[in-house]
Amino acid sequence: MSVEHGNSFLTAYLKEKKGAIDDALDRYLPGEENYPPVIFKAMRYSLFAGGKRIRPILCLASAEAVGGGSGKSLPSILPVACALELIHTYSLIHDDLPAMDNDDYRRGKPTSHKVFGEDIAILAGDALLTEAFHLIARRDLMGDVLPENLLTVIHDIAEAAGYFGMVGGQVVDLQSEGREADLETLHYIHSHKTGAMIITSVRAGALLAGASKDELYALSEYGRHVGLVFQIADDILNIEGDRALLGKNTGSDASRGKITFPAMMGVEASRRKARELVEQALVDIATFDPKARPLREIARYLVERKS
Amino acid sequence: MSVEHGNSFLTAYLKEKKGAIDDALDRYLPGEENYPPVIFKAMRYSLFAGGKRIRPILCLASAEAVGGGSGKSLPSILPVACALELIHTYSLIHDDLPAMDNDDYRRGKPTSHKVFGEDIAILAGDALLTEAFHLIARRDLMGDVLPENLLTVIHDIAEAAGYFGMVGGQVVDLQSEGREADLETLHYIHSHKTGAMIITSVRAGALLAGASKDELYALSEYGRHVGLVFQIADDILNIEGDRALLGKNTGSDASRGKITFPAMMGVEASRRKARELVEQALVDIATFDPKARPLREIARYLVERKS
Repeated sequence: MSVEHGNSFLTAYLKEKKGAIDDALDRYLPGEENYPPVIFKAMRYSLFAGGKRIRPILCLASAEAVGGGSGKSLPSILPVACALELIHTYSLIHDDLPAMDNDDYRRGKPTSHKVFGEDIAILAGDALLTEAFHLIARRDLMGDVLPENLLTVIHDIAEAAGYFGMVGGQVVDLQSEGREADLETLHYIHSHKTGAMIITSVRAGALLAGASKDELYALSEYGRHVGLVFQIADDILNIEGDRALLGKNTGSDASRGKITFPAMMGVEASRRKARELVEQALVDIATFDPKARPLREIARYLVERKS
Repeated sequence: MSVEHGNSFLTAYLKEKKGAIDDALDRYLPGEENYPPVIFKAMRYSLFAGGKRIRPILCLASAEAVGGGSGKSLPSILPVACALELIHTYSLIHDDLPAMDNDDYRRGKPTSHKVFGEDIAILAGDALLTEAFHLIARRDLMGDVLPENLLTVIHDIAEAAGYFGMVGGQVVDLQSEGREADLETLHYIHSHKTGAMIITSVRAGALLAGASKDELYALSEYGRHVGLVFQIADDILNIEGDRALLGKNTGSDASRGKITFPAMMGVEASRRKARELVEQALVDIATFDPKARPLREIARYLVERKS
């Protein structure tokens, strides 16, 4: 996960957090010595396939931004951060299935169903989704987080992942393939398919770290703007990204007739739109102190990323 | 859901509870007027396809058996009871998929993927599983249940539904088709694929109703025995059940080379085994007072059921 514009602060920050998240995921998830081995193999195959850990990192950075997350309280936020990645990974496995987007490659590796078969891929996704809630509710990892706050986090994550969030977005995305594009539908897909989980990632960290109502509102807005940036950047990368860096075929959105920002308004206008959104995200958290620096740098990074 | 041996107490009990659960599910789950309609249609199609609501009823009956569940505390247990049915329904939709058991009919109706397509069937399952945890964590339905108890219930349900429970059982079931049967594998499949969720149904109700440690242990044992009865009865029905009553093809286990109790030890020995297990389940809760009558009657009913 290299940062191209020579920002050594962010490079070091992302590296440290990604390391902590990867270690924790490896610790939390049972190994392949368990029975039946194939399900643990399949879950781990997709989970450790080179994800950037954007959602868990946003969760941790948001906790830090409101003054939690460093030192004592970090351990109890880490399971929630990891749960967000479990849900993200499940959604990729299911989205790649032949009945859905029918993708053979993801992050440069064959997709789960190509390696393990469709049946195991479906079940690996199911197991990852289930494990997310199991992990958040593990008493041995809970630390001093309030039970009612964990319940709120479970509620919010499930809402963002479900029919009014990510699943709803995927349904509309599937339905809209090859149809006449309209901006309203495009906005629905983006805000639900990726936006909702990005917002909930930012909110969950802040909530567990004891954010005030005002802070939580500001961070939700930040998440909303950053989530959209993330999706527009993804769409642009799908057109002009480097296949080697992305690890998947570019141009797949266009050949599938998917509606995207660049398809509707062109690449340059999309890039301008993304930069505007970054500015809005920075305004959202303008009153936050220097502990919000990671959130600020991440917002700027998302629009410039090459993979 | 008729009870054949003229037990009017149980008939009335099951009818009342099923009614309460059906009403609650209908209230909790958004309707088809929501966007995108097809996901709510698909979830509701499978959820209201004539399920017997065994798991939620066991949850409510278990709460009553330890002195809770009636009157004031019932409302706050109902969401958890319904969550168990959401998870059960998701598992049926995914199990029926072409990549899994490839079943065209379930409860006399075409399966989800036959009606909505594979993509929507997968997503409807995903949405139901996600909704289960959303529902348990809904603050407006929580009543006076302790947040830490709800977290324990979420933990236990996710464990029973995941890789060490239902998903693990389904993986081994898929792997064992057409292979030489052995009793150890058969026992693994039954105890994980159906057993774990039955045990957790019984435990969840008891836990929320304030069961003691001893009561919880006794009810877990009851759940373990009753879960096995349920599965053996299912296997026998698959051989000699009435297709019209079952709403699905009989003989499908045999034609698929599935290992089952009747396939391994014959129908009569399996029926004897099931009756022994019912006796054990009754012993497990022998010290409970008359409020455990529904649990006792349900155990006896499971072995005699015709559908």
